[in-house]
Amino acid sequence: MIYVMELPQTVEWAVHCCWLLAQTDGSPVPRRRLAEFFDLPEPYLAKLLKTLVAADVLSSVPGVNGGYRLARRADQITVLDVVQAVGGHTAMFHCAEIRQRGPVGLTPAQCRRPCGIAKVMYEAELAWRNALAAVRVADLTENAAGVSADRAARWLGSQARAGLAPGGSGPQRVESEQA
Amino acid sequence: MIYVMELPQTVEWAVHCCWLLAQTDGSPVPRRRLAEFFDLPEPYLAKLLKTLVAADVLSSVPGVNGGYRLARRADQITVLDVVQAVGGHTAMFHCAEIRQRGPVGLTPAQCRRPCGIAKVMYEAELAWRNALAAVRVADLTENAAGVSADRAARWLGSQARAGLAPGGSGPQRVESEQA
Repeated sequence: MIYVMELPQTVEWAVHCCWLLAQTDGSPVPRRRLAEFFDLPEPYLAKLLKTLVAADVLSSVPGVNGGYRLARRADQITVLDVVQAVGGHTAMFHCAEIRQRGPVGLTPAQCRRPCGIAKVMYEAELAWRNALAAVRVADLTENAAGVSADRAARWLGSQARAGLAPGGSGPQRVESEQA
Repeated sequence: MIYVMELPQTVEWAVHCCWLLAQTDGSPVPRRRLAEFFDLPEPYLAKLLKTLVAADVLSSVPGVNGGYRLARRADQITVLDVVQAVGGHTAMFHCAEIRQRGPVGLTPAQCRRPCGIAKVMYEAELAWRNALAAVRVADLTENAAGVSADRAARWLGSQARAGLAPGGSGPQRVESEQA
């Protein structure tokens, strides 16, 4: 009877991958490199990346220099976009209209408005979605901003966004923010 | 890969049962009567009711006149209490600290604070919980207040809360609110 509502572990992978791709200069990152960065099993990651492409969160670039990049600017993709791509768009709560069942059930005519109980559940779910929609991939950090950017830049090398590369002189200097 | 995060159907049953029990005068309602009211399979409902008793949402009264009633006043039980009793207390999102993995992973010392990505997920979940915690079982209706109360009173008969019974003269008169 105990049932735990959990998001799949791949939500964590998906959001972290999007964060990493937001640190690039826009050139595609090969799947193998993404898998290595987070030490993820590449076959599973491959399925996840396809799902994110299908949901228009990522785009894939074919060819020897191909890979994955964000489908839009990092400030135009919300965490909700990523979570819904992986977790589906279906509602958490499904009203089966049990208020219409039984010997004294309400009539369909009495049920033109959503059940008050379902409404409470839907509103809570909306609060969850709104909170995720308020955060953009561009806003994400894994740690303090400097530490996160440095970690990405070390891996991405010349693919890193200008100003994020180690020793870069952009507004998000790495060394000074690492303290 | 597509995974849909859904609450179990029994959440709907549980909240509706609590709503019905909030309409009583406090005397226990037999399990069979609860199952009949919502046309629910009694063996499944039995397991659910036990879960709700274990979570201190309901209390069970043994004996021939026994049954189930709310463990506390209906304004002292929140919808979150009911949902958590059925759906578990575990978080929706589980951070596996993948920021610490891979060749340039963050060090444990750099991860004393929660991952910024996990934090976004936790805050969204908190918004969901807070929305459910803001609604008490006493606040619930399945329809307009009068229609809901009338439906319960018709089933509960003399067990119905004073003022809710058909023809009652309490503040929640049935007939006048049914329009």
